[in-house]
Amino acid sequence: MKPFILVSNDDGYSFDGIKVLIDVAREFGDVMVVAPLNHQSGKASSISVTDPLRVIKIKEEPGLTVYAVNGTPSDCAKLGLGVLVGDRKVDLVLSGVNHGYNQGSSVLYSGTIGVVMEGVLAGIKSVAFSYGEYGPEGDFSPCIPYMRDIINKVLTNGLPQDVALNVNIPLLDEPIKGVKVTTTAQGMWTNTWDHRTDPRGMDYYWMLGEYIERDPNDETTDVFWLNRGYVSVTPIHVDQTDFQSMSALSKLLE
Amino acid sequence: MKPFILVSNDDGYSFDGIKVLIDVAREFGDVMVVAPLNHQSGKASSISVTDPLRVIKIKEEPGLTVYAVNGTPSDCAKLGLGVLVGDRKVDLVLSGVNHGYNQGSSVLYSGTIGVVMEGVLAGIKSVAFSYGEYGPEGDFSPCIPYMRDIINKVLTNGLPQDVALNVNIPLLDEPIKGVKVTTTAQGMWTNTWDHRTDPRGMDYYWMLGEYIERDPNDETTDVFWLNRGYVSVTPIHVDQTDFQSMSALSKLLE
Repeated sequence: MKPFILVSNDDGYSFDGIKVLIDVAREFGDVMVVAPLNHQSGKASSISVTDPLRVIKIKEEPGLTVYAVNGTPSDCAKLGLGVLVGDRKVDLVLSGVNHGYNQGSSVLYSGTIGVVMEGVLAGIKSVAFSYGEYGPEGDFSPCIPYMRDIINKVLTNGLPQDVALNVNIPLLDEPIKGVKVTTTAQGMWTNTWDHRTDPRGMDYYWMLGEYIERDPNDETTDVFWLNRGYVSVTPIHVDQTDFQSMSALSKLLE
Repeated sequence: MKPFILVSNDDGYSFDGIKVLIDVAREFGDVMVVAPLNHQSGKASSISVTDPLRVIKIKEEPGLTVYAVNGTPSDCAKLGLGVLVGDRKVDLVLSGVNHGYNQGSSVLYSGTIGVVMEGVLAGIKSVAFSYGEYGPEGDFSPCIPYMRDIINKVLTNGLPQDVALNVNIPLLDEPIKGVKVTTTAQGMWTNTWDHRTDPRGMDYYWMLGEYIERDPNDETTDVFWLNRGYVSVTPIHVDQTDFQSMSALSKLLE
């Protein structure tokens, strides 16, 4: 039997990035898309606890079914894996291609990453793809050979248990230089705020931000290698326990 | 100068849990509350990218200012630390007391945890508190001595760099037995779905779920010790890189 692949994203089912991912996924197997109806950037692993989810079937043809859901990326992955795929075993969860990088501490806020977290929690091999094209449309074709190669290797060789891949592909004027296995750069968004007054005299704030990397010379990070023209592949997991501070913490709380 | 403490939560500024946390925090310093206007459970680290934030000043008295914000817990922490505290240095970020545990893989979806992630990213000592009382009201007084003790020790002894504390307090008929430093239990929500049809004939789904722990006999976890009547204190960090699989992954992608 062909592999069965669940595809989602956070930009919404109609964006160019997910269309390219669907095309590449179909080279490897049967594809079910369960993606947000509307744009869901910055939703992290949020789930709809108090709102019901609605499902719209957008398309059905041999080897491809597309659903849109009025929820978050994690909602889509959960409803897809829990209901919409039925009894068929899912071999691979793919997320993206995100319009914009999910590098450094952006990973914390990423709905694209939220999808693959649901994949690994369900014990399924899972890969997120992001590209440095931030516009609503764009030429995603430079991503295709790298996506194809990584999907092929993951389907053939598997992945370590509980590990998903966060793949970022650089937007360049020149050819991409290669692929690096990387860590997630540490840093933070220094948010600036655009403080305005609405026509009724009420204040409001727009969140803006600039990413400040802690150590730009750290040669292990996704940001370092993306800046130098390489695809970054970062293994990520769900557990955020800081194991190495446990004994220090026991003393601190004595 | 007294310590300056930022307080937030995910249930909303008017819930009983945050009121108890404010009272305890005021024993240690000046308090600014920046909390969601409305209930924000399950929002993880999501941020409002496309919606503006509005701020309502609820209360101002010596040593206490309370703001409500129409956003997520992470929005509240970011706007609080970035704008509302002004030039005064924040010594401690506190989140909760959440109405319900944030244990095991629930941590992934928790807005209570989202708040302390913003705290550690800003380099500030940060502690999240959650209690096994799920109702909108409840008696949070059994939490108070443990909250007081942990806040005191964190202010006095500090915390390891980049580490926040996820504190869960058991709801018991008998006295709490003690405090354990724990890991986050691994497992997953097996979501079940209540599939209904609305009065106009349209389908919708309610997400339900049951938490299935991977290894209920693992004596290191938060779930294990909460079930046995102990307060669990789990050190958590932002970085989700799976360092130990990096060399295996390099081979896998060759």
